[in-house]
Amino acid sequence: MKFAIEHRPDSEYAYALDENTLRLVLKVARGERFKEIGVLWNNKYDFSMNRNYVPMTWRGSDGLWDYYVCDLASREVRFAYVFRLAPAGGGTLYFSEEGLTEDYDFQYGKYPFFQFPYLNSADVFTQVEWTKNAVFYQIFIDRFKRGNFEKDDSYINQTWDAPVNYRSYTGGDLKGIAEELPRLADMGITALYLTPIYKGRSNHKYNIDDYLEIDPMFGAREDLSELLDRAHALGIKVVTDTVFNHCGDMHPFFQDVAEKGKESPYHDFFIIHGDYPQRKPCNYETFAHCDDMPKWNTSNPEVREYLINIALTYLSWGFDGLRLDVADEVSHTMWRELRSAVKANYPEAVIIGEVWHENKMYLRGDEFDGVMNYKLRKVLLDYFALDALTAQEAAGNINRVWYKNTRQANGMMLNFLDNHDIPRFLELCKGDEENLRAALVALYFCPGMPCVYYGTELPLAGGEDPDCRRTYDWTKKPKHAVFLKALADTRKKLPEGDFYAAIEGGTLVLIREGKEERAKAYFGNHAVAGDVIFEYNDIKIVKETL
Amino acid sequence: MKFAIEHRPDSEYAYALDENTLRLVLKVARGERFKEIGVLWNNKYDFSMNRNYVPMTWRGSDGLWDYYVCDLASREVRFAYVFRLAPAGGGTLYFSEEGLTEDYDFQYGKYPFFQFPYLNSADVFTQVEWTKNAVFYQIFIDRFKRGNFEKDDSYINQTWDAPVNYRSYTGGDLKGIAEELPRLADMGITALYLTPIYKGRSNHKYNIDDYLEIDPMFGAREDLSELLDRAHALGIKVVTDTVFNHCGDMHPFFQDVAEKGKESPYHDFFIIHGDYPQRKPCNYETFAHCDDMPKWNTSNPEVREYLINIALTYLSWGFDGLRLDVADEVSHTMWRELRSAVKANYPEAVIIGEVWHENKMYLRGDEFDGVMNYKLRKVLLDYFALDALTAQEAAGNINRVWYKNTRQANGMMLNFLDNHDIPRFLELCKGDEENLRAALVALYFCPGMPCVYYGTELPLAGGEDPDCRRTYDWTKKPKHAVFLKALADTRKKLPEGDFYAAIEGGTLVLIREGKEERAKAYFGNHAVAGDVIFEYNDIKIVKETL
Repeated sequence: MKFAIEHRPDSEYAYALDENTLRLVLKVARGERFKEIGVLWNNKYDFSMNRNYVPMTWRGSDGLWDYYVCDLASREVRFAYVFRLAPAGGGTLYFSEEGLTEDYDFQYGKYPFFQFPYLNSADVFTQVEWTKNAVFYQIFIDRFKRGNFEKDDSYINQTWDAPVNYRSYTGGDLKGIAEELPRLADMGITALYLTPIYKGRSNHKYNIDDYLEIDPMFGAREDLSELLDRAHALGIKVVTDTVFNHCGDMHPFFQDVAEKGKESPYHDFFIIHGDYPQRKPCNYETFAHCDDMPKWNTSNPEVREYLINIALTYLSWGFDGLRLDVADEVSHTMWRELRSAVKANYPEAVIIGEVWHENKMYLRGDEFDGVMNYKLRKVLLDYFALDALTAQEAAGNINRVWYKNTRQANGMMLNFLDNHDIPRFLELCKGDEENLRAALVALYFCPGMPCVYYGTELPLAGGEDPDCRRTYDWTKKPKHAVFLKALADTRKKLPEGDFYAAIEGGTLVLIREGKEERAKAYFGNHAVAGDVIFEYNDIKIVKETL
Repeated sequence: MKFAIEHRPDSEYAYALDENTLRLVLKVARGERFKEIGVLWNNKYDFSMNRNYVPMTWRGSDGLWDYYVCDLASREVRFAYVFRLAPAGGGTLYFSEEGLTEDYDFQYGKYPFFQFPYLNSADVFTQVEWTKNAVFYQIFIDRFKRGNFEKDDSYINQTWDAPVNYRSYTGGDLKGIAEELPRLADMGITALYLTPIYKGRSNHKYNIDDYLEIDPMFGAREDLSELLDRAHALGIKVVTDTVFNHCGDMHPFFQDVAEKGKESPYHDFFIIHGDYPQRKPCNYETFAHCDDMPKWNTSNPEVREYLINIALTYLSWGFDGLRLDVADEVSHTMWRELRSAVKANYPEAVIIGEVWHENKMYLRGDEFDGVMNYKLRKVLLDYFALDALTAQEAAGNINRVWYKNTRQANGMMLNFLDNHDIPRFLELCKGDEENLRAALVALYFCPGMPCVYYGTELPLAGGEDPDCRRTYDWTKKPKHAVFLKALADTRKKLPEGDFYAAIEGGTLVLIREGKEERAKAYFGNHAVAGDVIFEYNDIKIVKETL
């Protein structure tokens, strides 16, 4: 009997949930039928003599694979294990480092078993506690709200209600955000993700010229302190956008190189193919093709030290986490060192990387906690906005995204429908607010941290950048605010534990299952069991005790 | 058309060979037929506008998968890429993060392409230059040769030629090794791997009580200096066994805890489930079930600092590398920090971990350079000694082992047939020296560093530990020495580049292929083309210019 089967030791398929629990995931070609699948395991030194047995549970399919999981909960820290499968047609199969075999020689077994050699506490990837119930709200500062009317506002080049373009300055600032905190708290928001607030010559501030000065357009250090104090008083965490891939071209280090060339002590802080940086043609590495955003050379240890100290300074000011811009173009070496420094000093700080593509190399526990979850966003978009997937396909794609990473990393993903880099979800579902709401239900139900882009509560429309960065419309009532609050309240009642998507009678169902409770979200008309804790049109979230 | 296909970005299937070359590996279900497979790629910002095309080359099968490879050699550092396949039956298929599709929308392509986001030089995993031609010789110190006849030898408890047991002390030392260096050099040996030489109460010294004192049974610091100087003068590198998983129970830190319990500043240097360490039942973590080898708590940063400083001290003495004992039970955190410290100060030092099972999590470039290659040893054993594989299966298993890791890691594997922990290869092939020689040809032909266990040249026999640790028989002539020298000389002529195993007319063939030359090792009677550079029975190594 031959079929596809996959497991990888010490990976997202075999990882510590905590110091006493090893989670195992096994992938088996979808549709193969088994009476039972389980794991034989023991301390590797005793494995040849006797084994414990733990059955595995089916937890979703992605269309190609069925996923089975189990936990080895034990004071044991050295795990040797072999999967045992009982095919529906009879017989027994074993799956080890040797592959699928009809027999397994446990005497000789010290060679081909799978192993998790030792569960060292230093390697346990722990979910930051506050992220478990976090609901984020993302603010693009210039466009949210102006609070300070005494600042030098000569930079503002249009009225608040005019359409925005790449060069628009509309006046939003930190004071404006501080004023709105009580309203956001009422909407169930528990964390803010602020786009960059540091000195830079643009409306977005992703080209930073001074990392330690708040841009005067947005406020000053006192405004930041007040914002952080008020937010914390309301139980709201604040994450700052941290731009370490590149800086602005007026950064003093780059200016020094522009002046002194190879003689500058900062020449090797950048990646310049020549003695002096030169623009046409550009002879230095940049963000994208933007010659006003020179890329930091994070292969230089001095650069890493400089930037990591800035990150530590941000956290010392009271920020609760970092959102790392263009994180995937920066060296892994940099991120490992940053994580070590951050977690040693601020273990509760969350580190979120901007990664649009394959992300698991950043989420092994040595670099980021989570990433901007573009992969989940794509499924929600395809299903709820574009109608490009069947319910079955949507369930499969959600499971595929989920099983790419550990439960901890999934729990710290920043899950969003839209942000300042992509069109508003509302735009992509052609203004259909019911579809937007349905997607929001899924967003809030999934593990990970839902992140609502400012103005979603109105809702605000907008296509590709810069249109997705429109000003908040203060003349309108936020008609979805109550809905968002209800979702946030519902979210608090959902059990921690496993998550997967499935199909019941053709309906997409998302499932969260802990040891004692299970919650299901049905996206479609379907008979339900258990207490209905949320309902919207034909969407229902139910909860039952196991 | 549906078939299995696999690729993983930023992994052993997509990695930098150097600062200007990205290697890609694609796995396709074995036996599927294609007119061509290739890669469309460009800078990710220009990918939607135009693409370069590079065809892929078939480079072996493992029985389940065919492996295709190509290199994107460019000054470009941000790679977006999609695989394009032309099935034999006609049509075109694309393979991206979205899976296999019949079409690919390059306009919208910024989302689902594969990417290598940025080739940062800090992340390039570089093969240490001297490892490329290294041929190792492993010495178990007590059993190789006694050179010092003036030392206190009251510890020696048997004559040199008596059978050894777990408690045997026979008198081998550093002076004895130094005397043999010219002979080893003549045999083509360019590096030594020495089992531990530090103070410990055993014949093997894997229970170290003082990391910075040479055990007086083996010599003193001056003997080590002389050994290192003489070796280096002959172009021989020396790697020391570094035992950081555990220490000996007479280590002063453990003794301090035994005396003061929880009050000792070293209590948290170990993992003790109680105030005082207690033996029956053992309440502290140990190596295996050995209560005389307490395990270091490398989750404690102080312990990591203490041990890493020891490693740096070894390298400051002149050692050229570290072989890390029981490496897989120590925290990844420890190894990442050790690598950073070692490579910052001694970039040419090689780091080899003892890992018997799945090893790729240690070989991403942030922990070890290579591991003790138990996986290759198993294939060579199964094929050349146990006759447990067909030539086809052997080729498949070799390819499977090879594609688990990058070319750089494979180049720094310590490849062996036997060592102090397992029976001699000769024992397992029932004394058949022709089979031993055939396996040695394969060992020397494969990339990675061949490591000959002391006495193989005689050859020395021996079963499971302690029998595999017999004394070297100085009454015999090393009859395989000339053979080993010929292999070492042949090895120098082999091209760098790709490696894979294949079958020609039923015969196992190992292939090394560079840009200009190709060498093949035929294990069986087969017509050959090119210059025969080595021949033994029906084994031939040939070389040809491409």
